[in-house]
Amino acid sequence: MEKDRPLILVTNDDGFEAAGIWALVEAVLPHGEVVIITPDGPRSAMGHAITMNVPLRIREFESPNGIKYYRTNGTPSDCVKLGQRVVLRDRKIDLVVSGINHGSNSSASLLYSGTMAAAIEASFEGIPAIGFSLLDYSEKADFTAAKIIADYVVKKALAHPFPEHICLNVNIPKSPIEGINGIKITKQAHGYWHEDMVEREDAFGRPYYWLTGHLVTKDCDENACQCALDNHYVSIQPVQFDMTAYKHINDFKYLEQWKITKE
Amino acid sequence: MEKDRPLILVTNDDGFEAAGIWALVEAVLPHGEVVIITPDGPRSAMGHAITMNVPLRIREFESPNGIKYYRTNGTPSDCVKLGQRVVLRDRKIDLVVSGINHGSNSSASLLYSGTMAAAIEASFEGIPAIGFSLLDYSEKADFTAAKIIADYVVKKALAHPFPEHICLNVNIPKSPIEGINGIKITKQAHGYWHEDMVEREDAFGRPYYWLTGHLVTKDCDENACQCALDNHYVSIQPVQFDMTAYKHINDFKYLEQWKITKE
Repeated sequence: MEKDRPLILVTNDDGFEAAGIWALVEAVLPHGEVVIITPDGPRSAMGHAITMNVPLRIREFESPNGIKYYRTNGTPSDCVKLGQRVVLRDRKIDLVVSGINHGSNSSASLLYSGTMAAAIEASFEGIPAIGFSLLDYSEKADFTAAKIIADYVVKKALAHPFPEHICLNVNIPKSPIEGINGIKITKQAHGYWHEDMVEREDAFGRPYYWLTGHLVTKDCDENACQCALDNHYVSIQPVQFDMTAYKHINDFKYLEQWKITKE
Repeated sequence: MEKDRPLILVTNDDGFEAAGIWALVEAVLPHGEVVIITPDGPRSAMGHAITMNVPLRIREFESPNGIKYYRTNGTPSDCVKLGQRVVLRDRKIDLVVSGINHGSNSSASLLYSGTMAAAIEASFEGIPAIGFSLLDYSEKADFTAAKIIADYVVKKALAHPFPEHICLNVNIPKSPIEGINGIKITKQAHGYWHEDMVEREDAFGRPYYWLTGHLVTKDCDENACQCALDNHYVSIQPVQFDMTAYKHINDFKYLEQWKITKE
């Protein structure tokens, strides 16, 4: 156990074979004691799924360049839970970082994202957490610029107080570092995934469907994540898990008029 | 195709064998044309997972009491997408209802909930949506009171304008109807699931873990969902998918100071 160095838990949703997690490990290694727990395969679009109906396994491995890490059959949220409870036996974690995701988690994608679920999971218990995503879905994505951004954000986040129960959703344009105009603190752009269900027939003539789609964003004012990204800025959105639509509490007050007839 | 009756899509996360979905079907049948799409097995705690790496299947079945419905291998979110795109071929859906879940989706459970993911999925595209959950995890839960509540809420929701991109998280106490004190429009109680990882050994001496836990709620002022439920009220929380922590935008503005040196 190291003393006086921040304890940083690294996880992702693309699994241990993804280049993104090793880019993130490189970025955070100078900043603390690093523990790595990753799913044993891709867990994209898992949202905030957790594993309750099958047992969780976790085993230690070593990366080709000699870094120890843990692999589990669980989801990104499970990685955080296993990290806290099993690997670190409730030692205080100073920061959870997740990613670097191969692909954007801006706008509505935040809700489907396993990368961000891991960060949100940490924020439930008041652990500062940051999810990093690069706007490049390719397995061979170039993480050079993303590593520079992650290094900067992690260093600063460790030096500043982090508001309780808040995490950050960091999305990084696909660009060499020279093409990135800066960092914007943003709000979530309103949008949704419009699905195109591709219909096929199997060898027995039965239909099946592939879920594909594209993100449709609206409300892209200059403070929205999507707008920042379109203008080649890194988007950093502070995220809370309270999903109450406070502005609409009064719109539904009429439902309180219900009375049962008690006899 | 029926005319002039609201088109209501019913789904859940407990699958077609759960009593809760048939209780919900009974509650909504008087209120419109009802289309039922349910997972082919339990999909609890799936969060907002979607299915991208295996093909989706959907087939029509008939319930023992003669009601036609669709089963799919997908998640609750997929049910909504398949309903819109495949079954209803983009007909306008007036209301999506999800549940009645066997178990609470109050506080932090909202984020893990497949029931609520289906409702949130609908709200992305501006379809009014309501998730119903009964505070009874039993397969043999009594849905008598929950059906009365669902009937009331659905009838009222169809008669009132629904704010765009908002859905409702309805949690119903485990109680006969006489024991329910009324309905409260609430905010999400702050809380988290504290995990107790149960460690076991398999037949080969290797460890595995079962994820169990209990909800720890804080901040239970009288407007919070958990407080309403504790006082035997139905909790109805308006939910938005914008997770931006607006209050904390300024806390992170210091990160915008980053400048790369361009040569």
